[in-house]
Amino acid sequence: MEKFPGPDDIYGAAKRILPHVHRTPVMTCESLNHLSGCTLFFKAENFQKVGAFKFRGASNAVFSLTDDEARHGVATHSSGNHAAALALAASRRGIKAHIVMPENAPEVKRAAVEGYDAEISYCKPTLAAREKGLEEVVERTGASFIHPYNDPRVIAGQATAALELCDEIDDLDIVMAPVGGGGLMSGTALAVSAVSPKTRLVGAEPSGADDAFRSLEAGRLIPSENPKTIADGLLTSLGTLTFAILSDRLEQIVTVGDESIVSAMRKVFERMKIVIEPSAAVPLAAVFDGSFSQRGKRIGIILSGGNVALDNLPF
Amino acid sequence: MEKFPGPDDIYGAAKRILPHVHRTPVMTCESLNHLSGCTLFFKAENFQKVGAFKFRGASNAVFSLTDDEARHGVATHSSGNHAAALALAASRRGIKAHIVMPENAPEVKRAAVEGYDAEISYCKPTLAAREKGLEEVVERTGASFIHPYNDPRVIAGQATAALELCDEIDDLDIVMAPVGGGGLMSGTALAVSAVSPKTRLVGAEPSGADDAFRSLEAGRLIPSENPKTIADGLLTSLGTLTFAILSDRLEQIVTVGDESIVSAMRKVFERMKIVIEPSAAVPLAAVFDGSFSQRGKRIGIILSGGNVALDNLPF
Repeated sequence: MEKFPGPDDIYGAAKRILPHVHRTPVMTCESLNHLSGCTLFFKAENFQKVGAFKFRGASNAVFSLTDDEARHGVATHSSGNHAAALALAASRRGIKAHIVMPENAPEVKRAAVEGYDAEISYCKPTLAAREKGLEEVVERTGASFIHPYNDPRVIAGQATAALELCDEIDDLDIVMAPVGGGGLMSGTALAVSAVSPKTRLVGAEPSGADDAFRSLEAGRLIPSENPKTIADGLLTSLGTLTFAILSDRLEQIVTVGDESIVSAMRKVFERMKIVIEPSAAVPLAAVFDGSFSQRGKRIGIILSGGNVALDNLPF
Repeated sequence: MEKFPGPDDIYGAAKRILPHVHRTPVMTCESLNHLSGCTLFFKAENFQKVGAFKFRGASNAVFSLTDDEARHGVATHSSGNHAAALALAASRRGIKAHIVMPENAPEVKRAAVEGYDAEISYCKPTLAAREKGLEEVVERTGASFIHPYNDPRVIAGQATAALELCDEIDDLDIVMAPVGGGGLMSGTALAVSAVSPKTRLVGAEPSGADDAFRSLEAGRLIPSENPKTIADGLLTSLGTLTFAILSDRLEQIVTVGDESIVSAMRKVFERMKIVIEPSAAVPLAAVFDGSFSQRGKRIGIILSGGNVALDNLPF
């Protein structure tokens, strides 16, 4: 079993990435408190650089490399926020990022990654082609592969968002985050259980991509097959390390349907006047879900990101 | 000539409304700085209560009333943010707000006003019918009429947003706000000229509703006829008092087309991850407009509000 990142790793990450990341605000909203019957504290990672918490983990990974490792650059396969985050973190260290991207990746995502001076190689849009493309790049360049979530350096980086939340807000009854590959929720769980051990930890997952829920129920990794949800950042399945951490630390995972996700997302736009992506709305959707009523509780929620196609909002 | 609200009135307003309003954040955005070549400071009144700066002016007016005046309540005719702002301010003082609203007002605006326990009377959707409806209400109830902008108490309240901005950010070269009836820009101009006299004051107006631009050019009030712009909060024309203040204090008014307004609004959604209404995007549209290039300058911008129909975003 891989070792979990400990408190020292998380504090180390916080110190390491401090010059690079935004300390995002913790927001509150009277009308959402009123509607939910809870006191909600939103850690607004939609305001993070590249528009998502992913920049924390990518920065910690990149700045954890030795100079010798760093010289050869970093690499990943991704078409999403992790690619942009890794590209920006690498450019801040002055090293090369190699991104293997499916040839059908949306133009806006290519442009974001190119804007940070990353080197993009295109491949067929299958996992096998992506993995093969990555292998070739690593072999050719000696770059360090930075996995989007199943990596202790990445998880320790993601943990810093919850660390800041708990530093600012005392006595949270519950902390929630969305679960996709599980990097954010793993980091959140490790940080919160270290600094606020009485706080309950609850993951939130779309019912159309509920591999984490099913894996924790079954006690073994069950990857998603053909996941389908509007929360496009949460289509990935847990890795071995994130599965182990979530199994060890979570009280439960709540699943919610796309309709509830869209409704929660809209509430955040309307009431809080901030832009979030569907994935970020999943924990709030759970709070408003009858099956997980937590009236009277103080709940911290990590709003994971704000990268949404404005031409195609779901409401 | 009506007397302008002075610094004492503005400081008085700030103290009076302190327990009621949000001190909204001043936000910055590296990528908008990069794109514009300026250093931009956004006073985020979209996060104000009722979603707009209007709550400042309405609160100052309501809490300026003597107990005897207050007993009879307040009244206005409006279908927009001022009605909701006045209704909430009145409910916080525990007095009645009487709102005369055109019978075709959008359901969402009615609901907002009703939610604050205001008493709504409906009238035909003409200015004459609204004024007559208001007169009847005032006669019947003895309520104090609170004009949405041409009132020194309202203007002193709106001034507090710029006062907070200048308190937080030094050495602004320019401060900009959108101009509709002119209440926000008047307050902004009075506050900034009091506390930062070297800062230049620039209003921004949609070219489809450019009565303030034409009035200041002509040196006399020229109300809009059939104004048409996506910035629906800026359709109103200056009043006598706001015309006098803007004539006295502004360096210029810049006008921008709807296409520029939509493009600036989209930039704010995409880059800053916050929700603003089209009216709030007008100053930024001017910054990006070739005719008003101010590269290298430190520019404060009042983002006036965030109440936008999410079903009908212009992009």
